[in-house]
Amino acid sequence: MPPRFTKLVESLPATVPFVGPETLERDRGAPFAARLGANESVFGPSPRVLKAMEKADREIWKYGDSISHDLRQALAAHHRITPENIVVGEGIDGLLGYLVRLVVEPGDGVVTSSGAYPTFNYHVNGFGGVLEMVPYRDDAEDLPALIARANDTGAKLVYLANPDNPMGSHWRGEDIATALEDLNPDTLFVLDEAYAEFAPAEAAVDLDIEDPRLIRMRTFSKAYGLAGARIGYAIGATPLIRAFEKIRNHFGMNRTAQVAALAALEDQQYLAQVVDQVRASRATIAGVAKDHGLTALPSATNFVTVDMGGTGDQARAMVAALARRGVFVRMPFVAPQDRCIRVSCGTDADMAVLAEHFGPALKDARETAQG
Amino acid sequence: MPPRFTKLVESLPATVPFVGPETLERDRGAPFAARLGANESVFGPSPRVLKAMEKADREIWKYGDSISHDLRQALAAHHRITPENIVVGEGIDGLLGYLVRLVVEPGDGVVTSSGAYPTFNYHVNGFGGVLEMVPYRDDAEDLPALIARANDTGAKLVYLANPDNPMGSHWRGEDIATALEDLNPDTLFVLDEAYAEFAPAEAAVDLDIEDPRLIRMRTFSKAYGLAGARIGYAIGATPLIRAFEKIRNHFGMNRTAQVAALAALEDQQYLAQVVDQVRASRATIAGVAKDHGLTALPSATNFVTVDMGGTGDQARAMVAALARRGVFVRMPFVAPQDRCIRVSCGTDADMAVLAEHFGPALKDARETAQG
Repeated sequence: MPPRFTKLVESLPATVPFVGPETLERDRGAPFAARLGANESVFGPSPRVLKAMEKADREIWKYGDSISHDLRQALAAHHRITPENIVVGEGIDGLLGYLVRLVVEPGDGVVTSSGAYPTFNYHVNGFGGVLEMVPYRDDAEDLPALIARANDTGAKLVYLANPDNPMGSHWRGEDIATALEDLNPDTLFVLDEAYAEFAPAEAAVDLDIEDPRLIRMRTFSKAYGLAGARIGYAIGATPLIRAFEKIRNHFGMNRTAQVAALAALEDQQYLAQVVDQVRASRATIAGVAKDHGLTALPSATNFVTVDMGGTGDQARAMVAALARRGVFVRMPFVAPQDRCIRVSCGTDADMAVLAEHFGPALKDARETAQG
Repeated sequence: MPPRFTKLVESLPATVPFVGPETLERDRGAPFAARLGANESVFGPSPRVLKAMEKADREIWKYGDSISHDLRQALAAHHRITPENIVVGEGIDGLLGYLVRLVVEPGDGVVTSSGAYPTFNYHVNGFGGVLEMVPYRDDAEDLPALIARANDTGAKLVYLANPDNPMGSHWRGEDIATALEDLNPDTLFVLDEAYAEFAPAEAAVDLDIEDPRLIRMRTFSKAYGLAGARIGYAIGATPLIRAFEKIRNHFGMNRTAQVAALAALEDQQYLAQVVDQVRASRATIAGVAKDHGLTALPSATNFVTVDMGGTGDQARAMVAALARRGVFVRMPFVAPQDRCIRVSCGTDADMAVLAEHFGPALKDARETAQG
C-alpha cells in the first residue's frame, strides 16, 4: 500500500518547471558549445569570489551560519535597510516557495502574467493556489491589468518580474509605486528583481522598506554569476520577513555560498564590468538578429528576446535547430510571445558560436517548418 | 496592513530548531576552541573532495543539474538499487520537510520520540501535523512503543533515527524489520540514517527497496564531512520517491555540492579512515568522562553522550561552563535524558582541548548548581 499522500499532492501533476541543460546534453549525447539558454552569467563570478570560495570550502564540514549574519549585515548596508528587512534563502525559487506557503491556502487566488516565470506558478499550484493569468500587452507584463485582476479576485499575491523574463521589458519604478496605490491593501505585491542589476536606474522602486504592500526578490544567480550556489534574498517589511522564520529551513544554506555571496557583493567594480559586458553582448545578439532580417526586442536584462517573425512552431523549430548545432537557447511558452526565442548574453567566444550557427540553423528551421 | 498569512502560519510560533554555533560565538564574542556540538565531522571531507570542489567552483555560474543524474547513478550503484529509488535534496532537513508536506495535512498524526530530532518536529508542526510523543526507554528510542502508538492513532508517519541522536543508541536492522510487520500498512516508517556509516553492521535494515512501508534518509553531512554543502538523499519505493518531483525545488541543489558528494562517495577508503578516527575519538571522550567519575553511554555515532549523573540543570550548567571555556557541546532536551551532555568526536587537538577544560568546567558547573 502506498503512503496516504495529502489530497492536494494527489491532485498535482508530476510536472517540472524546466528541463535543465544537463538533461538536454545527455539526451543529445554531447555538451553544448554555447550555453545561452538559462540566463546564467557566462562571465562567472569575480576572481575574488573564487578565491573566497576555495578558502571557504576547507570549512565545508561545518554547517553554515543559520541566520546568514554577515551576509545580511552587508546586504543591509548595501540597500540602506536593516538586517531585519532581509531573509536569505536557497535562490529566489526557494524563497518564492516559502512566500507562497506563508500566504496561500488551497483556493486562494494569485495573479501573474500568462507566460511569466513558471517556477512561481509551480509553487502556487503546489500549495493549492488558483492562478489568475493576465496576458502580456505589447510584449510587456500588463501592470494595470495585473492590479485590476488582483482587485477583482481578492488575490493574496500578485507577481511582477521587473525587468521581465522572458521578454526583457521593464517598468519604471514610479509606475509601479503609482500602481500600488490602486491595489487592495491586503494583497501583497511580489516584485521579482532577479535581473535588476542590468536594468536602467529608472526601474528602481523607491518606497519605504516598511511598506507592507511589497516584497522584493533578489539573487546572486544572475549578475553576480553564482547560479549554482543557490543563494537569493527577499527584502521587505520587518513583520513579513520575520514570518519566514516560522517555516524556512534554518540550516538550509550552503556555507560556501554565503561566503561567495558576501565576496561578490563586496566587488561592485567587477559587477559593473559584467554589466558592461552584458550590454555589449546584447548589442551583438541584436546585430546577429538584424543580419538575418530579424528584430531584437529591447532588453533590460542579461538576455535578448528575438522576434522570429512567425509562428510558435517556427520559433520552436529554431530552438531545436540551434540545439542540434550545439547552441542552447530557450523561448517564451505562450502565444503570441512564443514567436520569439530568448538568447542569454555570453562571452565573445559564445557570440562567435552564435553568429556562426544562427544562419544555418535558421535555414534548417525554415525547411523543417515548411516540410 | 500586513499580508494575510494562512491560518496555519498564524498559529505557528517563531521557533528555531537550533541556535547555531556561529550565533553562540557572536554572543560570547569569541570563536570556540573546540567545535564539538553539532555532530559535524571535524575530520573534514576527503582531500579528493576538496580538489573536486575547487574545480567545480569554476563552473558555479551554471545552475546545478536539476535531477542530480550522476550522483543518483553512483548512489544507485553504491546501494544496489536504481536511480528511481533515490531523491537528492538539501540535506535530510530539506528532505524531511518535503516528506512531511507530501503526506501530512493539518490534524494528521505523526509519531516520534520525545527528545528526538527537533527539526523533524518543526516540519510536522509547520504543516499542521499533530505530534504523538513516545518517551525514550533505557536511553533508546522505544521501537515497540512507537509502532503501538502509530497503530493506536492511525498516524501517517512514524520517525526513528537509527542510530539515534542524541543518545547514540541503535536498533538491530532485523528488529526494525520485525517491528514493521506489526505496523499499520498505511503508516510510513521514516528511518533517519544520518549516522549509519558509524554504526555496526547489525544496524542495517535488509528489506526490499520497493517495500512501501519504509523511507530511509541519508546524508553527506556526517561521515562524509560535508555538512556545509547541504546534500542528503532519501531512498525508498519508486512511487514514493517519484512523488517528491511534484513539490521539490527542482533547481535547489548547489552545483559544487553535487560534485563534492560524488567525489566523497567514490573515496570509500577515506570514509573508512574517518570511521576509525571517530571510533578512537569515542574512546577518548569516554576516557575523559571516566577520569571524572562519569559514565559515557555506548555510541554507534560520531558523538558520545555522557551521563552527568545529576539533574537537567546540572547538565545545562556543564554545557554553559564548557562554552565559557571555548568548548561547544550540546545536550538532550528532555528529561531524564537531559541529565547527559552530548560531545561530538573530534581530532586529537579537539580532544586535548576537551580534556584540558572538562575538569575545570565540571567544577564550575557544580559550583553554579550549588550556588
